[in-house]
Amino acid sequence: MSEPLITIAQFDEIVRATLPVADAHPYSVVSLGWGEAVVRLDYRDAMLRAGGTLSGPTMFTLADTALYAAVLSRIGYEPLAVTSNLDIHFLRKPEPRPLVARARVLRVGRRQAVGTIEIASEGGERGVLIEPLVAHATGTYARP
Amino acid sequence: MSEPLITIAQFDEIVRATLPVADAHPYSVVSLGWGEAVVRLDYRDAMLRAGGTLSGPTMFTLADTALYAAVLSRIGYEPLAVTSNLDIHFLRKPEPRPLVARARVLRVGRRQAVGTIEIASEGGERGVLIEPLVAHATGTYARP
Amino acid sequence: MSEPLITIAQFDEIVRATLPVADAHPYSVVSLGWGEAVVRLDYRDAMLRAGGTLSGPTMFTLADTALYAAVLSRIGYEPLAVTSNLDIHFLRKPEPRPLVARARVLRVGRRQAVGTIEIASEGGERGVLIEPLVAHATGTYARP
Amino acid sequence: MSEPLITIAQFDEIVRATLPVADAHPYSVVSLGWGEAVVRLDYRDAMLRAGGTLSGPTMFTLADTALYAAVLSRIGYEPLAVTSNLDIHFLRKPEPRPLVARARVLRVGRRQAVGTIEIASEGGERGVLIEPLVAHATGTYARP
Repeated sequence: MSEPLITIAQFDEIVRATLPVADAHPYSVVSLGWGEAVVRLDYRDAMLRAGGTLSGPTMFTLADTALYAAVLSRIGYEPLAVTSNLDIHFLRKPEPRPLVARARVLRVGRRQAVGTIEIASEGGERGVLIEPLVAHATGTYARP
Repeated sequence: MSEPLITIAQFDEIVRATLPVADAHPYSVVSLGWGEAVVRLDYRDAMLRAGGTLSGPTMFTLADTALYAAVLSRIGYEPLAVTSNLDIHFLRKPEPRPLVARARVLRVGRRQAVGTIEIASEGGERGVLIEPLVAHATGTYARP
Repeated sequence: MSEPLITIAQFDEIVRATLPVADAHPYSVVSLGWGEAVVRLDYRDAMLRAGGTLSGPTMFTLADTALYAAVLSRIGYEPLAVTSNLDIHFLRKPEPRPLVARARVLRVGRRQAVGTIEIASEGGERGVLIEPLVAHATGTYARP
Repeated sequence: MSEPLITIAQFDEIVRATLPVADAHPYSVVSLGWGEAVVRLDYRDAMLRAGGTLSGPTMFTLADTALYAAVLSRIGYEPLAVTSNLDIHFLRKPEPRPLVARARVLRVGRRQAVGTIEIASEGGERGVLIEPLVAHATGTYARP
């Protein structure tokens, strides 16, 4: 088991610098390991869609952010890594409350990194997923 | 060739009613046919990410909106249809200007509808894609 | 924790009855739980492709078979359930020896079931995966 | 419009040399353009599954072969290019007769190539698709 190659503070710095949309996307990194990240998304009414559930783009953005953190934990500080593919399955309608995503890198090559992301509503404690999953995604980041 | 089962005005009404985020997502439906939709996304600086390119979530949201319009053109006014899966490939970094998405339904069944979405930058005329594509997606909507 | 709704023998019966190709696809179900299946694929030289590695279609077929078993463990004996979508990422070139797939159902609805499949080479013991993964897939089965 | 960088005969040579399974997969390349390929799969009873329809692995293999041809038409003779991702949607149950796949490359980069594949039953003439599609796929090949 190795140490993550970036800190949470460095990741936040990259996201704030590179994604102006970060203000509308109130995420926080709960934990960061070597190839693993847990990211929490605070709840805002603007994320809702018909039926009182969170919108697909909200969950996509969370999945993308969590995988980004997990990938950077393996390749280090790299603001120019970009998503080349993301496949997301929406499994259940999430309730209007915070979401937690757990990303795990499956492979890091010289050219790209592949990983999975599980998303669920936040449970009793901050940053803890409660089953069942509301979404599952698989994504690829291209290394610059 | 049949007529689309909703009008552009009806689609706008559904999106405004069901997606509070619509204000941050300045789309407009350029055309709507039976199983086909062309949707334009105006450009905002908030969509940028590092390197002067549009963010992945921005393109995901556009793809999702365009497929939603194309699906409703086949199944009619249905605010509760939801995306169950979306797989997006980011092909090239788009320049900071409007994007156009062209969605096409491949199949409508009793339970779900599947379609593809091509995204490119807007060309000489409003609502016209210029090659090459910047993203390609395949998505599934579940019918309620 | 519930009991699986089919037995390994019933699953084998469905596969032999419905997939004539089963002879060229020498799989065996190692274990079957409620929403989970571990499936082993014996090695044949015909599965090889250039570079001495196993072919993509071989891994796709294994992923599909393992998810089918996991889905039937939740919905019971149902020869007419069919794959509606499968997204597979090939992570590493597998060596020419048996593969093991572990499928897990994420959600079973009235219309469809979604799950993931991890594939790796077989380790020291029969039916045991050894990391790292050689492929990861996500799939959807439609219920008839 | 450029010329394809391999001939049909060269492609056949690569497939026969690299995929021993080619005998069970009676494909033929109908046409090859720059970034485009039309590939036909002859029908065999072994491809059937329950309900008298063609199996998923059969269509996956055809999609993969057609995209391989389309990619090589752009990058030239390269036996070591491998599929890194393939996402396939099965849209309708195909009848027990020949299938035709049309692959189109969307982007070729230094590291990978992305394309789509449409599959339908063969129509009145050899190598001609008749709508509606029975499957649609998106795939990525990694360049060695």
